[in-house]
Amino acid sequence: MPKIPSATTYSPANPPPSSSSPTSSIDGQILRFIPFQSSADEGFWRRLSSLKLDTLGLDQSPIPITGFYAPCSHPQVPNPLKLMAESLPDDAGEQSTSLQSVNGNRNRCPLPGILYNTNTLESFHSLDKNALLKAEAKKIYDDIISGKADDDCTVLSRFLLISFADLKKWTFYHWFAFPALSFDSPATLISIQSASKTFNLEEAKYLTKACNEWRNSDTRGGVPFFLVRITSNAHVTIQPLKAWEPLQHGGEKLLFGFYDPCNLPSNPGWPLRNFLAFICLKWKIEKIQFFCFRERRGLIDLDFSLVGEALIAFPQGWKDTHRVPKAVGWDLKPKLINLSASMDPTRLAVSAADLNLKLMRWRALPSLNMNILSSVTCLLVGAGTLGCQVARMLMAWGVRRITFLDSGRVSMSNPVRQSLYTFEDCLNGGELKAVAAAKSLKRIFPAVEAVGVELEIPMPGHPVPAKETNNVIKDCEHLQNLISSHDVIFLLTDTRESRWLPTLLCTNENKVAITAALGFDSYLVMRHGAGPAQFSSDMHGSTCSSATDDDTNGIVSQIHKLSMEGDHKGQRLGCYFCNDVVAPIDSTSNRTLDQQCTVTRPGAAPIASSLAVEMLVGILHHPEGINAPGEISSSIIGSSDRPLGILPHQIRGSLSQFSQMTLVGYSSKCCTACSDAVVSEYRRKGMEFVLQAITQPAYLEDLTGLTELIISAKSFSLDWDEDADDLAANVDD
Amino acid sequence: MPKIPSATTYSPANPPPSSSSPTSSIDGQILRFIPFQSSADEGFWRRLSSLKLDTLGLDQSPIPITGFYAPCSHPQVPNPLKLMAESLPDDAGEQSTSLQSVNGNRNRCPLPGILYNTNTLESFHSLDKNALLKAEAKKIYDDIISGKADDDCTVLSRFLLISFADLKKWTFYHWFAFPALSFDSPATLISIQSASKTFNLEEAKYLTKACNEWRNSDTRGGVPFFLVRITSNAHVTIQPLKAWEPLQHGGEKLLFGFYDPCNLPSNPGWPLRNFLAFICLKWKIEKIQFFCFRERRGLIDLDFSLVGEALIAFPQGWKDTHRVPKAVGWDLKPKLINLSASMDPTRLAVSAADLNLKLMRWRALPSLNMNILSSVTCLLVGAGTLGCQVARMLMAWGVRRITFLDSGRVSMSNPVRQSLYTFEDCLNGGELKAVAAAKSLKRIFPAVEAVGVELEIPMPGHPVPAKETNNVIKDCEHLQNLISSHDVIFLLTDTRESRWLPTLLCTNENKVAITAALGFDSYLVMRHGAGPAQFSSDMHGSTCSSATDDDTNGIVSQIHKLSMEGDHKGQRLGCYFCNDVVAPIDSTSNRTLDQQCTVTRPGAAPIASSLAVEMLVGILHHPEGINAPGEISSSIIGSSDRPLGILPHQIRGSLSQFSQMTLVGYSSKCCTACSDAVVSEYRRKGMEFVLQAITQPAYLEDLTGLTELIISAKSFSLDWDEDADDLAANVDD
Repeated sequence: MPKIPSATTYSPANPPPSSSSPTSSIDGQILRFIPFQSSADEGFWRRLSSLKLDTLGLDQSPIPITGFYAPCSHPQVPNPLKLMAESLPDDAGEQSTSLQSVNGNRNRCPLPGILYNTNTLESFHSLDKNALLKAEAKKIYDDIISGKADDDCTVLSRFLLISFADLKKWTFYHWFAFPALSFDSPATLISIQSASKTFNLEEAKYLTKACNEWRNSDTRGGVPFFLVRITSNAHVTIQPLKAWEPLQHGGEKLLFGFYDPCNLPSNPGWPLRNFLAFICLKWKIEKIQFFCFRERRGLIDLDFSLVGEALIAFPQGWKDTHRVPKAVGWDLKPKLINLSASMDPTRLAVSAADLNLKLMRWRALPSLNMNILSSVTCLLVGAGTLGCQVARMLMAWGVRRITFLDSGRVSMSNPVRQSLYTFEDCLNGGELKAVAAAKSLKRIFPAVEAVGVELEIPMPGHPVPAKETNNVIKDCEHLQNLISSHDVIFLLTDTRESRWLPTLLCTNENKVAITAALGFDSYLVMRHGAGPAQFSSDMHGSTCSSATDDDTNGIVSQIHKLSMEGDHKGQRLGCYFCNDVVAPIDSTSNRTLDQQCTVTRPGAAPIASSLAVEMLVGILHHPEGINAPGEISSSIIGSSDRPLGILPHQIRGSLSQFSQMTLVGYSSKCCTACSDAVVSEYRRKGMEFVLQAITQPAYLEDLTGLTELIISAKSFSLDWDEDADDLAANVDD
Repeated sequence: MPKIPSATTYSPANPPPSSSSPTSSIDGQILRFIPFQSSADEGFWRRLSSLKLDTLGLDQSPIPITGFYAPCSHPQVPNPLKLMAESLPDDAGEQSTSLQSVNGNRNRCPLPGILYNTNTLESFHSLDKNALLKAEAKKIYDDIISGKADDDCTVLSRFLLISFADLKKWTFYHWFAFPALSFDSPATLISIQSASKTFNLEEAKYLTKACNEWRNSDTRGGVPFFLVRITSNAHVTIQPLKAWEPLQHGGEKLLFGFYDPCNLPSNPGWPLRNFLAFICLKWKIEKIQFFCFRERRGLIDLDFSLVGEALIAFPQGWKDTHRVPKAVGWDLKPKLINLSASMDPTRLAVSAADLNLKLMRWRALPSLNMNILSSVTCLLVGAGTLGCQVARMLMAWGVRRITFLDSGRVSMSNPVRQSLYTFEDCLNGGELKAVAAAKSLKRIFPAVEAVGVELEIPMPGHPVPAKETNNVIKDCEHLQNLISSHDVIFLLTDTRESRWLPTLLCTNENKVAITAALGFDSYLVMRHGAGPAQFSSDMHGSTCSSATDDDTNGIVSQIHKLSMEGDHKGQRLGCYFCNDVVAPIDSTSNRTLDQQCTVTRPGAAPIASSLAVEMLVGILHHPEGINAPGEISSSIIGSSDRPLGILPHQIRGSLSQFSQMTLVGYSSKCCTACSDAVVSEYRRKGMEFVLQAITQPAYLEDLTGLTELIISAKSFSLDWDEDADDLAANVDD
């Protein structure tokens, strides 16, 4: 990487290399213009960063920008051309809006510029700087010839900026040019001295008054080139450039004034250069009196301002208006600014975390909706191997609002598999998992909104002692509230029955629910179908659907009818329990240790978690969302027309075969968690229903007609971690 | 979970509920035996834990154990039955070895016991305690009848322990029983008092002498039941039980002595109970004088020891030797011990981290070789998204020796995707990734041996300025040493060319190399084939193989022949570069930001990383290791006969299709990294070759004949992240 120096500032103590020494009159000497200083502030680079990331992407088209400057106001320091956030178009690409707020600010005379921001450092260095400069110089020349400069003299100070923004490191390479038309032979200086030495007291008095009026005018304060007309009776007026013609015949003293950013006592600043070209081209004047307008505390300072006289020779080349005149104006060296140190680290982290996602939008995934991702609220039921990894994947996808739900504590065997915990979390009995997981997310990314909730999920088949009933109801209601207040619920526990109540509640509220479950060397990831549609509370009737097709019961068929509406094919997608022919029962009692701990091949959990989050991103980007039909992976890679690819209903994978398949299963009328019968009963009886289901597992089976089905198919048995072929009966392809 | 109290200890200040008050003679009162105290130390539970995890698995067969006790030696504290590590069989299942070291320790009289360790807490509670007790009592009864107890009187004090070891929480539920045969009516106590009150001075003197001799004898010191014979001239001898018969006719005073663990002044300890049964059954004696042997500072203490006299009635049921006699002996309550607090946390973490793996061996994967996993050394080239996740998966699989290689620093955009870093690692310019990753692993698992190495990998197409040559050679050598000193190398960088040198070096040393690489929504995981076999340095010749099949060049064909030997099908598996038809070139220059940062769907990296580690575990468990042929996933799930399933050569997956496939590709003669031509050239020229390849990319192409091939197939172009069908030409299935 080439070393790039910081900008240097010239001052009387540190004059430019070729500057003349400060004498008041140096007849015949070459007139030297002090180059513009430039300064692009943090706001400029920030705006450029977000513009590049969010709007421009790979587009390298030149961007019109606006620089600001004012007359020099301090003898020690030149006034630089300033770039700030307002210099750039806003996100909508409109420059005018942001500039409006600037107009009228007398210290921000706007100058038009152009920015070439490249995609790589190599392009930055290999830009044809000479050609770029010539192109801008030609614009200046053309504007003079066409008369555009008469109306808008700021085009005489056009500037050019090339840059490369390394958004990963918050480092900005950039290089300014202030194109100046070249004369065949340099202008020679007849004299230059403080304006206070040039004018008599009376002239000075009126000049001061006229200057301050001009500067304070809303319409003219920002016009940096002007005519100063001094009559013989010391009457002074300041006029815009286009007033030159009528002034020609008065015989008054005429000075060509400009806001001079330079602070040196015997050199004019850079804007005079093109001004002289303008005067020479336009009016063919070869001996010019110029006035370098400088101020102090907002008022003209005649001691500091300069008056000079120069001789110019009309360049022969300029007669051919089609030729591009020679030009100079590149800063000596490029500059490098690194904002990472000056930025608030947390804010830096926020930008950085979004960086990869924003970069995705440049090329691979222009339709990525980061707003949806950053605003969606996710509830993770279970903060174990799956929960930790799901949270990480959510953060990587830009999800910022994550709630963990778990009742356990971090134990010594967790950290090597559960990626949000460390050894320290295990000490002194172990932190609460939900709390530790939320803390861990904040350590990774301080701006995440992560919350941990300690809650034990009431489960069917885990009977509740009478004195515990109230607590269990409280837990149910807490869970209900949590599900209500989140958009997406991930079911990531390690038992079947702990998924039952969350599944029911998600179905009831039509929430996006995604299940990930592990076998020893297999995994299942599935999204639950939409729930039965809104059920009006004034509907009454039977509480039970059966497994037969000719069910004509009032409510159920009404719900059923409603539930169909969201779906094209007339069938809702199934939930995790739709494949089962037994209601969830207590599977935690009497489990051996290898059944209690999730004894799985370590690879299964990160894969299932990653797929679960990829599936969520698919749902959030699918026009039909939760109602999107289940798709099957095609044998032709890349067959989907959506940039994120297909959106399957279920993904099953095997680590022993390194294989993976997509499946579709529809909702079952006998389902113990999402069937109309169960949902309507829950709506009718509320927590009483839940308690009953928890205490008497057969209740759910009876309610859904499962009991009947089980009797008729006794030899049948299913479990979630059994081989994938068991599901084949349910596959649609 | 039932509440289980800690053990209580009786003392004179806290006598047993029904204990008689301490009077010296209480004719006609029921003789009460003070139950055995018991104490299983940490060593016992540790040994049980590892026995269960490593050897027994789900086996619930009863385990013979040995308890230890000694005469009571302190008036305030009874002497408990102790269980310690040596009480259990060692890992090889042999008990004798560990017991040998105990024999001869006079304070560890061994008693035979049996342990029923259940797999679940529920089984523990539902064990038929009555039946278990009866079974042990029957053994005692049978041993008395058969005469076995004459030879080994310790069988009279058989004990029984049931337990459940919650290895996840280091909590042990257990319940002792000391089975005692029940008389029809209880024994009545005629008298009991301090032995010093019973004997005259002379008797006391000889008794003391005889007792101490018995206790200090190597062969008899551990025999807890014996006969005390006192002649009329105060001569005292102590005899084993089987000496009873000849003593019958001497008319001397005979006491039945036993090591008494009890400390109470007017109650004998539990061992007397079965001793009385023995005496009654064996010799039909109904009036018995007993001697409770207690000591102080290793010597008999007659003040503390007791002499008593009791009456027993021969139970009618005992006459039928086939009947199981009634028995008592369960402790009042189960006990619970939790060792987690007392354990060194790091040590606890080590056990815990292994827990899930050991549990795998119980049922799902008995052939899992944890020794291979814990001893294998892995070098991770690249500590980014892939490197972090690979390291986590390795730890989860029990790999403990991990080296990271990376030259970068943690940047703000890393933590949300690179799972070993936190926000803090990004501050102040960012920690070195390799170092931060190693630290992070230690925070997760303190016992891991993790090292971070800052090293930039020399890459083809990145020309080296002359003055840098030495540094680059140093880097190459450093990399070479690292690869030499590790067993497995993961290639996890984000450019193609950075994998070239590591691939060549791995091929040269025949190291296991696994590549994971990401596209935007696709991933590739592959293991490299074995390298050409050892190349003798005295072979000289041409440096180049061509793409034609009839290559007859001396060396190359020799190497080629050698390289075939390890492979059944006569073809080596390919490496990452075998599919390419261009040599690696500089792909980092002039890359736009979205190409520089790994812009991938976040799900890709954890999936690829997980698969890479699962693949490694497959290689380590495959009998042919690096030479294992590449397998293709079968349509029939579970078709592999190896418990870990198939071992593919390449896995390619698509997140947009949620699909995954396995492929096989063989080594290419034109490969720029693993072909004979390249390896032999590297062996001949060493670092000079590497420098040449780095500086002139065409050199590799010429050497391997690739140039020719490219010319003949100009329209062809391949890149690793292109769609999987591009590879179809190379698939074997």
